Amino acid sequence: MKNITPLFYFKDHIKIVDQRKLPLELKYAYCRNEQDIFSAIKKMKIRGAPAIGVAAAFGLYLGIKDFNSKDRNDFIKRMEKVIRYLSSSRPTAVNLRWALEEVKQEVLANRGLKIDKLKGLIYNKAVKIMRDDQDRCRRMAGFAFGLIKKGDSCLTICNAGGMATSGYGTALGVFFKAKERGRKFEVFACETRPLLQGARITAWELKQKGIKTTLICDSMAASLMKKGVIKKVFVGADRVTMNGDFANKIGTYSIAALAKLHKIPFYVVAPLSTFDKKLHSGRDIPIEFRNKDEITKLYFKKSIAPSGIGVFNPAFDVTDAKLVTAFITEKGIIKPPYAKNIRKIINGRK
Amino acid sequence: MKNITPLFYFKDHIKIVDQRKLPLELKYAYCRNEQDIFSAIKKMKIRGAPAIGVAAAFGLYLGIKDFNSKDRNDFIKRMEKVIRYLSSSRPTAVNLRWALEEVKQEVLANRGLKIDKLKGLIYNKAVKIMRDDQDRCRRMAGFAFGLIKKGDSCLTICNAGGMATSGYGTALGVFFKAKERGRKFEVFACETRPLLQGARITAWELKQKGIKTTLICDSMAASLMKKGVIKKVFVGADRVTMNGDFANKIGTYSIAALAKLHKIPFYVVAPLSTFDKKLHSGRDIPIEFRNKDEITKLYFKKSIAPSGIGVFNPAFDVTDAKLVTAFITEKGIIKPPYAKNIRKIINGRK
Repeated sequence: MKNITPLFYFKDHIKIVDQRKLPLELKYAYCRNEQDIFSAIKKMKIRGAPAIGVAAAFGLYLGIKDFNSKDRNDFIKRMEKVIRYLSSSRPTAVNLRWALEEVKQEVLANRGLKIDKLKGLIYNKAVKIMRDDQDRCRRMAGFAFGLIKKGDSCLTICNAGGMATSGYGTALGVFFKAKERGRKFEVFACETRPLLQGARITAWELKQKGIKTTLICDSMAASLMKKGVIKKVFVGADRVTMNGDFANKIGTYSIAALAKLHKIPFYVVAPLSTFDKKLHSGRDIPIEFRNKDEITKLYFKKSIAPSGIGVFNPAFDVTDAKLVTAFITEKGIIKPPYAKNIRKIINGRK
Repeated sequence: MKNITPLFYFKDHIKIVDQRKLPLELKYAYCRNEQDIFSAIKKMKIRGAPAIGVAAAFGLYLGIKDFNSKDRNDFIKRMEKVIRYLSSSRPTAVNLRWALEEVKQEVLANRGLKIDKLKGLIYNKAVKIMRDDQDRCRRMAGFAFGLIKKGDSCLTICNAGGMATSGYGTALGVFFKAKERGRKFEVFACETRPLLQGARITAWELKQKGIKTTLICDSMAASLMKKGVIKKVFVGADRVTMNGDFANKIGTYSIAALAKLHKIPFYVVAPLSTFDKKLHSGRDIPIEFRNKDEITKLYFKKSIAPSGIGVFNPAFDVTDAKLVTAFITEKGIIKPPYAKNIRKIINGRK
C-alpha cells in the first residue's frame, strides 16, 4: 500500500502538502526559510502533532543553512532564536518543542564541529526524526492492531493518520495495520469541525487504503454509541501530561466522556514525543484559540452566521486520564495507574 | 421587539421564508398548491416541528381550495388524500400529523356544511392553529423564564425559535422572555451540523433580540460544560413519547448525556402538539435519514469529502427520559415520573 506523507525534504527547500486543500486538490507549499515553515504550521497547511514536530526540525535547518559567519557562538545564538520563533507557531502540541529540543541537544553535544558540519548535523537530525517517527508509528500499530476484533466498528476524530505524522499515522496506523493483517472491521470518521480534518483527510486516507469508512458529523457519535454500533475509539494526542490527562482536537473530550458512559474502550495512540515530562496535569496545557472565521465562514469563504456574532473557537480540549482505557506508545501499551506507569515507560526510554 | 415568523398567509397562496438562505439572504418561497408546501417542508425551506405543522395545515387548504365538485364525500376523500400526501413530507416531527388531524376533525364535525363553507373552515382552522401556536410559545416562556438566573450561561442546539414555530419559539422563547424581563444572561448556540440551523438561524434570532450570544461547534459543548460555564440547557423537540423519551435534532442526545454527566439541568420546551399519545417510548419514533450531500458538500456546493465515501446522516436522535430535568408545555412544567405526569397533563388538556 502506498505510504501517505505530508512532507518531502530537499537540501534547499521543504515541500509540504497543503492539507487545507485535501482531498479535492493536491497542492504543495514550497518552504525556503523558517518563515515559510512557521506560516505553514500556523495556517495549518501542515498539522498533526508529530508532523509539525518534523516540519519544525526542517524549519530550523532552513533557518540556519545560510548562516555565514564563522563564529560558533553566533551560530548557536542564531539557532536558539530560530527555535524560539518556530516554537511559537502553535502552542498546544508538545512535539513541536520536543523535535526542536532534540536537534538543539545534538548540536550542543557536537558544538566543537565546524559550522558547515553543524548545518549537516541539523539536516541529518531532521531526517532522522522524520524516519524515526514513521518507525514509531509502525511499532505503535503493531502493539495495538490486535485490539481490533473481527466485525468491530471503530470511531476516530480529526486526522491521526499519515498526514498527521511522517507517514502511516498514530490512531489511523492501527487501522492500517489491522487492514494489512486482513482483519475485517470498519471505521466511523467524525468530520471534525471546524476545519473538517476528519471529512477531508481521514476519510480520504482510509478510503485509499480500502478500509470501509462512514463519515459522520461530530454530533452523531453519541447516537451510534447508544445504538451499540461503536465498539472501540482510537484517537491521537497533541500533548499528554504525566498524570495521563491529554489534549487533542476539540471534540475529543466529548467522545471520551460519551465512550465511558456507553462502556466503550477509548485508546490514545501517541509516541512518547507527545508526552510532556514537565506538565503534571491537563490543567497545565496551553490551549490555542483560533480565528472565528473558521466557524462563521465555511472554508473561509461563505458566511454562515450573522455578522458580528461572538465565537468560541478552542482548537483543542483536555480529556481526563480516567476516561482513557490505555495509551499506546512505541514502547508498549500503558494502562492505569497512569501517574506511575507513564513515568516508568518514559524513564525506561533513554 | 419585532416578531420573527416563518410564514405569511393569503387566500390564494402562502409565503414562506426560505430558511436555507438565512441569515445572509431573506428570500421567500411562494406556495400556491399542496405540492409547493410538500416541497418546502421536505427541502427544509421551512423546518421546526410546530412550524411544519402550521405549514401543513395551510397546505391542506391550498390542496382543496380549487376543488370544484359539489359532492361532499368526494371533498372528504380529496381532503384525506391531501392529508396523506402532506403527512409523508417528513417522518419524525409529530406536529405535522397533529395539525392535519386537527383540521380534519374540524371538517368532519361540520361535514353538513356546504363545500365553500368547509373550505373557509379549513382556512380559518389553519389560521387558528398558527395563532394558537404563538400563544402556546408565550405561555411556555412564561412558565420557564424564571429558570434562568442572573449571570447564567445557557446552551441550545438547532433552532427552536420564531422560525421553528409560528413566531417566538419554544426553547428560544424562554430566552426572549427572560430578556424582556430584564434578566442578564447569555446563550451559547451550537452551530448544529449538518444544516447549521444554530449558526444561521438561532444566532441570528438571538442577535436580533439583543441577547449576548456565542456560537460554538457542536463538539465544543462538552468542553464548556467541563469548565463549569454552562448552567442550563434548553432545547425543543420533534416528538415526545408517553414515557418522556423524545426525538430532536441530531446532537441533542449527546448534549443531554453530557449535561447529565456534568450535573447541568436539561429542559425540553415543547407544546403538547409535540407529544405523541400513540407512542410508548423513543424506540418507536421513526427517524428520518437525509441525503449524504448535507454532510459531504458544505452548503450543497463545495465538496469537502472524498467522492464515494459512505455517510450516516440521521436528522434526529432520541434522548432518554431519564436525562430530562423537566418538560415545559403550555399547560405547565412536567417533572418525573414522566410516564405518569405526561398522561396527567395530556388528559387534562381537552
